[in-house]
Amino acid sequence: MRVKDKSKQDALFMATVNLVNEIGFVASSVSKIANKAGVSPATIYVYYKNKEDLLVSTYMAIKKNLGAEILGNFNESLPIRDIFRNVWLNIFSYISKYPQYFQFVEQFSNSPFSDLMNKEEVEKSYEPLIRVMQKGIEQKIIKDVDYDILIAFMFYPIYNLSNKRLCANFIKNKENIETAFTLAWDAIKL
Amino acid sequence: MRVKDKSKQDALFMATVNLVNEIGFVASSVSKIANKAGVSPATIYVYYKNKEDLLVSTYMAIKKNLGAEILGNFNESLPIRDIFRNVWLNIFSYISKYPQYFQFVEQFSNSPFSDLMNKEEVEKSYEPLIRVMQKGIEQKIIKDVDYDILIAFMFYPIYNLSNKRLCANFIKNKENIETAFTLAWDAIKL
Repeated sequence: MRVKDKSKQDALFMATVNLVNEIGFVASSVSKIANKAGVSPATIYVYYKNKEDLLVSTYMAIKKNLGAEILGNFNESLPIRDIFRNVWLNIFSYISKYPQYFQFVEQFSNSPFSDLMNKEEVEKSYEPLIRVMQKGIEQKIIKDVDYDILIAFMFYPIYNLSNKRLCANFIKNKENIETAFTLAWDAIKL
Repeated sequence: MRVKDKSKQDALFMATVNLVNEIGFVASSVSKIANKAGVSPATIYVYYKNKEDLLVSTYMAIKKNLGAEILGNFNESLPIRDIFRNVWLNIFSYISKYPQYFQFVEQFSNSPFSDLMNKEEVEKSYEPLIRVMQKGIEQKIIKDVDYDILIAFMFYPIYNLSNKRLCANFIKNKENIETAFTLAWDAIKL
């Protein structure tokens, strides 16, 4: 049995993210990913069963990591608007720092591989946030609409706004980030 | 001089969109696009100067087409909320019908090729909409914030919500689309 090496696993993670972003899921073969990571193809099979396992694991790792980051300063005793503001600012800073992770997640969600992931396990990382959303709806603070709609307006514009190429002027002004949260809140509040 | 053939140009347009969506901008060579379109590589040069020209032209064609579609029933004499509602519903139906066009546009905007496009020419297709946004701000109906922010909240969630894989439940219910517009309007209105 081969011993697992954290630095090799990190290299594989980054190689997977970057290669998929560059050439897509179909063309990203195990051998090309191994080559980019500077390991032998056989090494990949020490860590992952196959290409599907590697892709799904990479997706799960990012989703869990994002969950941990955005709920880092989570404090359920705050007013609901303040909880959402903290989460919003955390997501903004995470996506600004790691746009390539989010690009991978987007592509993955749009691909047939997304049928292979464990949805319950992903949702577990976001449980506190979902609980606050429910509480907000019960207390008539947040609109009682489909979660897909709340999430699309609350968090989706962040991906667009944090893009330095698309919204260079926006990012230059720190106040804009607070302003953008105001629009997100106005969208979902009752 | 070779005569230009509309059906060949259409085939090249679709091949460019689909190949870039599958394997990305870097790997999409002129010869692969020609192969996918069922034409000879030489034929591409009858219509386009080079790969850059083909990619930029494809982007411009989609943006102009989208502009024409969403402003199809544009009526500047309506109340501003109704104008935005019409535009919102038009974009929703356009993106639902042609998700691959929007995916191409997104990738293009994120790539260095976006520096090559004629921004003024694109904006010309959206002039009436920009005029209404200005009017809404002057009349204190719409928030006086950066256009990037208004656009991110007004239109960006549509891409997420119209995705059948991500939001299957959302799309099943026609009322959801009207509800989602309400959130978009609440985000941008003063």
